[in-house]
Amino acid sequence: MTCLQIPAAERAQLAMMLEVCAYPKPGNVDRCHDYPDTRLEHFLASTIFARSAFEEAELGTGRIGEIIKHAVRDTNCHLGGNTHFGAFILLIPLIYGKDIHGAQKAIEKTDTSDAVAFYKAFAMTSVRMNAADELDVNDPHTLTLIRDRGMTLLDIMQHSAASDMVAREWVTGFRLSRRGADILKETGPGRQAIVRTFLTLLATEPDTFIIKKHGAGVAQEIMNSARDVLDGKRSAEDLDGECISRGINPGSIADILIASLFIALGERWSWDY
Amino acid sequence: MTCLQIPAAERAQLAMMLEVCAYPKPGNVDRCHDYPDTRLEHFLASTIFARSAFEEAELGTGRIGEIIKHAVRDTNCHLGGNTHFGAFILLIPLIYGKDIHGAQKAIEKTDTSDAVAFYKAFAMTSVRMNAADELDVNDPHTLTLIRDRGMTLLDIMQHSAASDMVAREWVTGFRLSRRGADILKETGPGRQAIVRTFLTLLATEPDTFIIKKHGAGVAQEIMNSARDVLDGKRSAEDLDGECISRGINPGSIADILIASLFIALGERWSWDY
Repeated sequence: MTCLQIPAAERAQLAMMLEVCAYPKPGNVDRCHDYPDTRLEHFLASTIFARSAFEEAELGTGRIGEIIKHAVRDTNCHLGGNTHFGAFILLIPLIYGKDIHGAQKAIEKTDTSDAVAFYKAFAMTSVRMNAADELDVNDPHTLTLIRDRGMTLLDIMQHSAASDMVAREWVTGFRLSRRGADILKETGPGRQAIVRTFLTLLATEPDTFIIKKHGAGVAQEIMNSARDVLDGKRSAEDLDGECISRGINPGSIADILIASLFIALGERWSWDY
Repeated sequence: MTCLQIPAAERAQLAMMLEVCAYPKPGNVDRCHDYPDTRLEHFLASTIFARSAFEEAELGTGRIGEIIKHAVRDTNCHLGGNTHFGAFILLIPLIYGKDIHGAQKAIEKTDTSDAVAFYKAFAMTSVRMNAADELDVNDPHTLTLIRDRGMTLLDIMQHSAASDMVAREWVTGFRLSRRGADILKETGPGRQAIVRTFLTLLATEPDTFIIKKHGAGVAQEIMNSARDVLDGKRSAEDLDGECISRGINPGSIADILIASLFIALGERWSWDY
């Protein structure tokens, strides 16, 4: 066996492991930085615990919403809180469908039962939504609303796409995940390509997790700073320090990077060198 | 589900992950140090790839020697070389037997087929043996010798016990693995207990991997240095730097620490806090 022939479930785990280990990734947990309540070990424990749900996705027979719920449930047992909710939203259709094309076909088949399961998964996390969201996960009437309107999980993602770049991947054919995979392949093997891809996405896309927490101005500021790092005007370590001290973490771009790694690993990009 | 109820296969993966992340562990790959050819990501990739063999062990129906061979084969696909051969020798009977008592019963039942499979696994690694070992893994006559004498895998471990502390665990009822688990539980939850346990084993037991590579004098010297760290006379970081610059890595004690973590996690010791 070579590492190119590993099953999709293990490839997804590798993608999660490689993302969290890559250093420096400004603002995010990495090999050298923890958050006070969420540490490297929590991310890696989630990587281990996600295996059963990924294997379920690999079978390609169950329902996407239910499998996302299983991944959240199984990775919720440690004290590090939510580590990979956004990553699961991307990885599970990608594993299920084998590639982006298959993932798109799978998400088109989601129905109201997927939407309901997804909301139950969402409620298990502490992920925040926009205030005033009509489909607030903390509102018990939301499930009734979803059922009454017959909303599918794809409908839910369309509803969230304007304010959430992970949901947007579902409606744009995994556009950023694809771009990240292309950057990885253009940059070459190994972990420096992971850091470069993260910085490039950070410089070109406003992170919606930052927007929700700190507003659009801060997200734009971080894009400019990431551009400065790519242009050699500033070190990644310096930006990392600033993000950490200001509590700014580009969590959604990290989720997309995981999907990019999964795609690139399936297209013979190598983490190993 | 809580993290206390996870299956034994995942518990073994957690033990491997926690061991390699714990820092500082003088001389070994950890969160902050790689070797030139074997990096943190290789250890964590092996942690992911070992899952199938661990699940096979959890079923408790296959043969120990064959399962060790599968673990080595499945974790051999990356370029980082052997990362966990010693750990598999300990973990697989422990998973198979559920605890130390069960592991001892399982290893008593090994036969010549286990010994042969083990030697085939050994040949896949680059682990060195003592020069002049009668059962040299690189000698094609070794398998004939094992078959002619009807040696079991336990016989092989008895043969190696004098010079290999991992093999010695099989014949002493996992004495050091047990002691490490007790130190973890006495020290309390979290990663500082892992570092403390590593240093305590390092201070009290000559690492046979160091002896094979550098001789008994160096192994004794490292024991004294680890004692100085425990006594507060020297920092762990300082000893780490010295070990790295001299190419001294206590790899066998790292393997035993993984077994200790597996045992302790099964006895309600918590990595999480």
